[in-house]
Amino acid sequence: MSERNKQTDSPEKNAAGISAAKLVKDGDILGLGTGSTVLYTIKELGRRIREEGLKIKGIPTSFSTEEAAINENIPLTSFSHTPYVDIAIDGADMFDADFYAIKGGGAAHTREKVVAYSAKRFVLVADEKKKSEKLNMPVPVEILPFSKLFVMEKIKEAGGIPVLRLGAKKDGPVITDNGNFILDCDFKTIENPEKTAQILNEIPGIVEHGIFKNVSEIHIGKADGTVEILKKK
Amino acid sequence: MSERNKQTDSPEKNAAGISAAKLVKDGDILGLGTGSTVLYTIKELGRRIREEGLKIKGIPTSFSTEEAAINENIPLTSFSHTPYVDIAIDGADMFDADFYAIKGGGAAHTREKVVAYSAKRFVLVADEKKKSEKLNMPVPVEILPFSKLFVMEKIKEAGGIPVLRLGAKKDGPVITDNGNFILDCDFKTIENPEKTAQILNEIPGIVEHGIFKNVSEIHIGKADGTVEILKKK
Repeated sequence: MSERNKQTDSPEKNAAGISAAKLVKDGDILGLGTGSTVLYTIKELGRRIREEGLKIKGIPTSFSTEEAAINENIPLTSFSHTPYVDIAIDGADMFDADFYAIKGGGAAHTREKVVAYSAKRFVLVADEKKKSEKLNMPVPVEILPFSKLFVMEKIKEAGGIPVLRLGAKKDGPVITDNGNFILDCDFKTIENPEKTAQILNEIPGIVEHGIFKNVSEIHIGKADGTVEILKKK
Repeated sequence: MSERNKQTDSPEKNAAGISAAKLVKDGDILGLGTGSTVLYTIKELGRRIREEGLKIKGIPTSFSTEEAAINENIPLTSFSHTPYVDIAIDGADMFDADFYAIKGGGAAHTREKVVAYSAKRFVLVADEKKKSEKLNMPVPVEILPFSKLFVMEKIKEAGGIPVLRLGAKKDGPVITDNGNFILDCDFKTIENPEKTAQILNEIPGIVEHGIFKNVSEIHIGKADGTVEILKKK
């Protein structure tokens, strides 16, 4: 498990993670996102399964989450059994006032997006530091390795600065769970996430980018253990 | 080499392939497409290198084409050396009156599209059977294997009928050169290729679809050995 996904003691993340776990009902097929906040959701779901007999099936979005879910004895299923999930719970690296989010710090955003977009309800869990009036952090973009130089040029043409994400504890680039590279693409402040997403969607060689647009609600944990819940109208 | 890419004696394909090879100039970095018609281009380029001393470097779009180019002693380079090519020459499974094309019968359309979209000039070679007033054959769509059921549902929502392409000489699905699956998606007659392309671009799990839109010119070989050249205005 990477440093990033190690569960540190965070009251904010804990509160948000548990709050979202309350939404899960008996019989749900559940998309399990990736990251340090979702780990609190997974832990709480494990508790509910043990103590309340909650009956659910989870679909993990990464090897990391699969391991965490197995540790909590959450029964797993896969996207080979169902095209849809009832609810997906995931973290975000940043979200804005219009329910757009940036994900992919953990290089798992492609699977996370497929699972999130298949969900009837897509719930973000986060602490307040992830909130921003506008999205202004680099967008992680998963690309086919051979297309690297070409995609970098197209990103520059679109006004971004692409940086190949390098691995730690491995030489050369990070390799995603799908066997691809990640470009972190800095567009400074993203005034129109819809338009930036569309530009990225049209560049061949890009497998998936980290701009998410179908968030249903956001559970924001505070330092005092309370949770602010934002719901999309 | 698959049956599909075996060079059979076709005067139409031969004429088109040779016609496009004439466009290649000394010093060109050249995108080499995949398929039976491009094999004639590759053969002609091999001849020009041997007999005329033509100096070019090719970037192959598939293992199949790489093999053919090596057989003709065409010097190769890769997309790790340059983000752009001067000219790309490729076949198509179908093209329409508005210079849209469908590719991917050989499951190589993702690499072909990256190379084609990086080209200053993208030239299609084809015989007359590939011409259609409107595109009306299934669109090959390369997908991440785990997302199969979800993408199939989204294709159905968009009015298409998706069929997983099964392998020959291997059990189960075809695996692309990138390690993915192919869905052949039948939208019947595609009235608006731009819109269908955009819908496909937005579905997570899709790596790349086979609708191409940046064709510069089309060389159509006829049975009598003549070639009709269409140029985009």
